[in-house]
Amino acid sequence: MATTAAIVSIGDELLAGDVENTNASWLGTRLTEFGIDVREIRVVPDEAPTIETTVSDLSQTHTLVLTTGGLGSTPDDITIEAVADALGLPLEPNSEAREHVEAAVTEIREDHPDFRHDIETAARYPASAEIIPNHVGIAPGCICGNVYVLPGIPAEMKAVFEHVANGLEGSITSQTLYTETPESHLNTVLSEVSERFDARIGCYPTGELKRIRIVGEEETAVEDATAWLVRHPNIRRDV
Amino acid sequence: MATTAAIVSIGDELLAGDVENTNASWLGTRLTEFGIDVREIRVVPDEAPTIETTVSDLSQTHTLVLTTGGLGSTPDDITIEAVADALGLPLEPNSEAREHVEAAVTEIREDHPDFRHDIETAARYPASAEIIPNHVGIAPGCICGNVYVLPGIPAEMKAVFEHVANGLEGSITSQTLYTETPESHLNTVLSEVSERFDARIGCYPTGELKRIRIVGEEETAVEDATAWLVRHPNIRRDV
Repeated sequence: MATTAAIVSIGDELLAGDVENTNASWLGTRLTEFGIDVREIRVVPDEAPTIETTVSDLSQTHTLVLTTGGLGSTPDDITIEAVADALGLPLEPNSEAREHVEAAVTEIREDHPDFRHDIETAARYPASAEIIPNHVGIAPGCICGNVYVLPGIPAEMKAVFEHVANGLEGSITSQTLYTETPESHLNTVLSEVSERFDARIGCYPTGELKRIRIVGEEETAVEDATAWLVRHPNIRRDV
Repeated sequence: MATTAAIVSIGDELLAGDVENTNASWLGTRLTEFGIDVREIRVVPDEAPTIETTVSDLSQTHTLVLTTGGLGSTPDDITIEAVADALGLPLEPNSEAREHVEAAVTEIREDHPDFRHDIETAARYPASAEIIPNHVGIAPGCICGNVYVLPGIPAEMKAVFEHVANGLEGSITSQTLYTETPESHLNTVLSEVSERFDARIGCYPTGELKRIRIVGEEETAVEDATAWLVRHPNIRRDV
């Protein structure tokens, strides 16, 4: 079985197009590098029932689910409660989370002595959650079962993800080729490579140049398909 | 009932993070400008059953569904068939689509006389589909029921969308305010505005500045909530 992942990006601002969802593409790239097959990205609003249903469904169909966003302290930040509900876990005071939140708040107060933060609420995490430190912001991330809960601010999301990245391992391998041949001239060769080798083939136009991506679980199948493709005129390994 | 929309972005390259999903955020912005409430974005792979299930589900829960991607001519471009299957419509030769495809191919052949394209296949669209011209690329978009099928290449997607944009009408209105007050100091005022007025409130950090977004179906409720918020110190209308 392939290691698959779904990314859930939480936030009305992403749906309204106010913020570009760079988190999902960054995570897509990193997970793909680890050989994990990203099968779905969903952007959902700051609404508890929608987040809960989405996380519950995707955690049952994918090896990993990664959420981003909704870890702040305003009323629309409801990811932690929604993930807890999705997994049927109660929220509990978490001493490790509390230490991280207190340390971050203490640091902010050095420059802004009147800074207020509801530490009790911010230190409540789903029971049995593994806390992931966040050295860039206040709210730590966490792992609950197969769900990784990450902050939404890109710098925080990346820092929290990198804390746990070395524990990730997938089974997918891929190769990329390039060609200037028009898409509509590639049909026969792309259909044939899919039939000959145990690999998925995608073709993506980027201006005059087309990128051919070969993806599979067996490294030899992907390598054989790649070697077979580059024997064709005008299909090559470099840009 | 609010006019709601879901955007379905189709393509393995988006999931692998090879391409930033600027289409979804661009459509999110445009639809929001029309007063349409974008409730979900899904990025799905170039897989017929997944596209079919996604379009079928979302077309039943939202006023509008917009798909982007998968209209090319390589074997991984399967959106048209999948949308037809999702809506239970047969694929049929479409004379209007054929005219558009032939015109585009003729133009390409002026510079590239050996350009080949399977016009028969490219001119098959779901029965009763309304064809949307694509003057930037080869494949026209289409409207099938409440599903708008758009190309994936951003320039083509935008051009095809703009052909039908003037027919879109929503019911949502929104206002944006700005503040430098820390998020955690805004809880009381944001909770209170939600209780006082029939409007959703979001708060989005963008560096030191926080953006407060007020969204609702009743223009007066959104205006009243905005007027109430700007009476608070440090909450203002401009950046």
